[in-house]
Amino acid sequence: MRPDKTYSDFVIVGGVAAGPKTAAVLARRLPNASITLFQKGERLSYATCGLPYFASGDIDSIDSLMRTSYGVLRDRHFFRDTKGFSVFTGAEIIRIDRKKKTVTVKDIEAGEAYNHGYGKLVLATGARPNHPPFPVPDSPLVRHFTTPDDALQFRSLAEKGKIGKASIVGGGFIGCEVAEASGGIWGIETTLFEKEDNILPYIFDPEIAAIVERELSRKGVVVKTATEMIKVTPGVDSPLELHLSDGATVPTDYLFLCLGVRPESGLAKEAGLEIGNSGGIKINRYLQTSDPDIYAGGDCIESAHRLTGAPIFLPMGSLANRHGWVIAENLAGHPTEFEGVLGAFLVKVFDLNLGAVGLSETSALKSGLEVDSVIGSFSDKPDFYPESKTVTAKMVLEKPGGRLLGLQVVGAGDICRRIDVFSSFLSTGAVVDDLLSFEHGYAPPYSESLDPLHHLASLALAQKRGMKILSPFDGSCGNSLCLDVREESEFMMDNVERGVDLAPEVLNIPLGSLRARLDELPRDRKIIVVCKRGPRSYQAALILTAAGFKDVAILGGGVQGLL
Amino acid sequence: MRPDKTYSDFVIVGGVAAGPKTAAVLARRLPNASITLFQKGERLSYATCGLPYFASGDIDSIDSLMRTSYGVLRDRHFFRDTKGFSVFTGAEIIRIDRKKKTVTVKDIEAGEAYNHGYGKLVLATGARPNHPPFPVPDSPLVRHFTTPDDALQFRSLAEKGKIGKASIVGGGFIGCEVAEASGGIWGIETTLFEKEDNILPYIFDPEIAAIVERELSRKGVVVKTATEMIKVTPGVDSPLELHLSDGATVPTDYLFLCLGVRPESGLAKEAGLEIGNSGGIKINRYLQTSDPDIYAGGDCIESAHRLTGAPIFLPMGSLANRHGWVIAENLAGHPTEFEGVLGAFLVKVFDLNLGAVGLSETSALKSGLEVDSVIGSFSDKPDFYPESKTVTAKMVLEKPGGRLLGLQVVGAGDICRRIDVFSSFLSTGAVVDDLLSFEHGYAPPYSESLDPLHHLASLALAQKRGMKILSPFDGSCGNSLCLDVREESEFMMDNVERGVDLAPEVLNIPLGSLRARLDELPRDRKIIVVCKRGPRSYQAALILTAAGFKDVAILGGGVQGLL
Repeated sequence: MRPDKTYSDFVIVGGVAAGPKTAAVLARRLPNASITLFQKGERLSYATCGLPYFASGDIDSIDSLMRTSYGVLRDRHFFRDTKGFSVFTGAEIIRIDRKKKTVTVKDIEAGEAYNHGYGKLVLATGARPNHPPFPVPDSPLVRHFTTPDDALQFRSLAEKGKIGKASIVGGGFIGCEVAEASGGIWGIETTLFEKEDNILPYIFDPEIAAIVERELSRKGVVVKTATEMIKVTPGVDSPLELHLSDGATVPTDYLFLCLGVRPESGLAKEAGLEIGNSGGIKINRYLQTSDPDIYAGGDCIESAHRLTGAPIFLPMGSLANRHGWVIAENLAGHPTEFEGVLGAFLVKVFDLNLGAVGLSETSALKSGLEVDSVIGSFSDKPDFYPESKTVTAKMVLEKPGGRLLGLQVVGAGDICRRIDVFSSFLSTGAVVDDLLSFEHGYAPPYSESLDPLHHLASLALAQKRGMKILSPFDGSCGNSLCLDVREESEFMMDNVERGVDLAPEVLNIPLGSLRARLDELPRDRKIIVVCKRGPRSYQAALILTAAGFKDVAILGGGVQGLL
Repeated sequence: MRPDKTYSDFVIVGGVAAGPKTAAVLARRLPNASITLFQKGERLSYATCGLPYFASGDIDSIDSLMRTSYGVLRDRHFFRDTKGFSVFTGAEIIRIDRKKKTVTVKDIEAGEAYNHGYGKLVLATGARPNHPPFPVPDSPLVRHFTTPDDALQFRSLAEKGKIGKASIVGGGFIGCEVAEASGGIWGIETTLFEKEDNILPYIFDPEIAAIVERELSRKGVVVKTATEMIKVTPGVDSPLELHLSDGATVPTDYLFLCLGVRPESGLAKEAGLEIGNSGGIKINRYLQTSDPDIYAGGDCIESAHRLTGAPIFLPMGSLANRHGWVIAENLAGHPTEFEGVLGAFLVKVFDLNLGAVGLSETSALKSGLEVDSVIGSFSDKPDFYPESKTVTAKMVLEKPGGRLLGLQVVGAGDICRRIDVFSSFLSTGAVVDDLLSFEHGYAPPYSESLDPLHHLASLALAQKRGMKILSPFDGSCGNSLCLDVREESEFMMDNVERGVDLAPEVLNIPLGSLRARLDELPRDRKIIVVCKRGPRSYQAALILTAAGFKDVAILGGGVQGLL
């Protein structure tokens, strides 16, 4: 099928997120304009981010990812009758003629091409999965995880019990979500491979990623970091065999390639539009490409990081939707800026909630910034309230001014509030003292009287005044003593051996007895104080310092950060 | 018991929230200073805000409200050994001599008084419950709900099944929490009386409060608004009889007086410190009273509202904790400002989560501001995700610039993120367009690809461009037609009669058929479009307007806002 007309005021290329959003807002703003959207595939406006939850069995039907909340399929009829614009599927744009202002459309079914003129053009061509740097057999059991078909095939095999062992290459967000999908209710023996030293690299620092790795392990997923794959071959006892750099081979029934995506910017490049080093289409603050008649949004563009100004490729459904909105406003004559990106992420991995916004310490250092960081564990509600849960958070600050750079939070508790609030603080260039003025909503079913962000700010200020706060990855220090200031019952109950990782010797003196038992402590050794979450260690360190102990540090996040 | 010394560097009056927080931070900052805290009662540092959850049975033991997370009682030994300051209970401060810089302490048990000198004095004397403006008998069955004893007595009687009928006077936060405690698992026939036209007045506007009132009714609590009480007498068939202004009498077994609190500022007043019109102690940005050697924090002070600058009395445990912190920093020689208050509230009422921050429309109008508002209902997660729930939100803006003034959110879904983020936006003087740049964390288990705040901003901009968005309380409009654009199955299933409240006639044309069925609609009548949450109505109104219909409005928040 092809359009009756040969020209539209607005032509939009891409029908998943940014494309339909642009078209829908534009049709609302300019109801008399002609708007035509071309989509290469047959499916429209599906919720890509929902695919892992279909694969996992949490969502019954993949159909629900393609329907409105009231059950209507988002097909071309829906967009025409409800949203007011024309959609053609199976219609691939193979060329842009910027002089004539036409696109060449290939009608995939009919196998013929035609030209369609545009007033303004919007590119929302999305991204495509990265191919592995190692050879893989052409097998239906080796799949990316980016399309509904990928999810459908896995679930169909999983439901039939046809996958005994699955492997995932790539420990990013999708890799982690797929690990839960595979190792969760389907009970598949699942191994996650990541070539960097920790999963979720760059987004999460090692000590936070370690908490997630331990959760995956607890749930039966084997995590292998710092592990490179050399090749994948058909196996003898299993359909596939993975060959690792250390010479080991791993039999597997199904291989997920979760190696990230890259911008689908070939069409733009061929048309001579400027492309960034990330491979994304370059845009200005109005999401306009180097051709003022062509805008671009969604996963095909390169964004500017709001904290560093550096170009960054950040494919996110939430950003794609906001891009669509901004483009439509600009096209409708209302100049609207897209301020760039901070990188706000949430991801669920079994019983852990994870979130990050801004820069991790690793990324900040890579950007050439001078940074400080603090880590702490907190209750998300008062401990007396039945559903109280713990979160561990790491805050990254710029030295010496204390400008906020990033936050990572992980735990069973409510992390979303903290990420969202921190995001809004980051967008204003706030410094750590600004967090102290944050007025959070408080009631026992929802929060503590002081928010984790208040406590993190307080820790950062204490650190600035000389308190030494270690990260769990700062590790053991030779001759040091680990002083556990929890109550005896807590100390006996769990993690007695944890202290040993930090120091060769562990001593338990409950905080309430510390002032009376100072003479039990050596004055010539480094003392690392630990407790459950951190506040008692903090208090203990102050008591020790006031009593003249010279080399005292606390373990940020306490035993909780080691679980 | 009384102090050995007759002077302390820092004397703190009050041992519940702001007092112990000030002392604890100060002891950390200045470990060699002498710090003495006097508390009139015997109990220290208990979580007042947790009392309703002990009364309700959610919390097993009231003891947990007085212990640390690791089970240690917060008594004078705890504060001395762990926190490093001295505490005396049963020690009432009856006089401040500002010239001599002494306080006169009455040892309640011993019945004698003594003087104690101070370098700096901190008043954290808290608040006391308002007495009713009507006569009440002196009965143990008529109680405020502000102390552990209030909660203990109610629960003891409730557990023994001795309360058949309970009444609550005052529909503020505590009144609502007590209504759940009483009408919940104890199954007591509970009636909530509020003299204003809606419960939670000033904080929530009527259409949002109405959602809460309906939830209370669904859970069996009778809500009587605009109802004044004249007197309470001993009853004939029941221990108590409430007499209402309309002549009715209501038998009751137990009466809660939840009429709010007022600052306990008598001591400060007698010492000649400046007191505000609210009755709270006047403080500057450093929380210093009119005497530079005396600071004050917690429920006894008067704050400045960050949006209006107006003085306001806002007793909140979360603020009290931040006050304590700020006072201690100032006393430790690190000038720290308290920026004033926005009023951020959260409260749980049965299965509804409620939150508000900033000004309601009612309060903003009362402050003399010119305001706009929009209301909408939203899914807190994608509808395809299993645990997705709805929230209804109202945003208040200043005319004409669009400065953000307030947000109210209510629903079964996640409201806390939105309140906290909006609070941080309010603190920077943000305008509505700033919300469009908000980068929220997104993943299906937690959020939609666009946040409710994005949608609210979009609605506000649409309203500015001429879209008429009604509140449920704008009510019926004579000859108007209610156009329900939901699917037929949704229309048939529920709330068919809801439309009748809005207009004498209801017509159902699903949105997807609207363009084809425009001729079924009258062009000479006002059309009020409704759907489930709002987006379909919005789209429908644009279709109608583009087709030349002149008088079209939508119901903000949809049918969801009427449930």
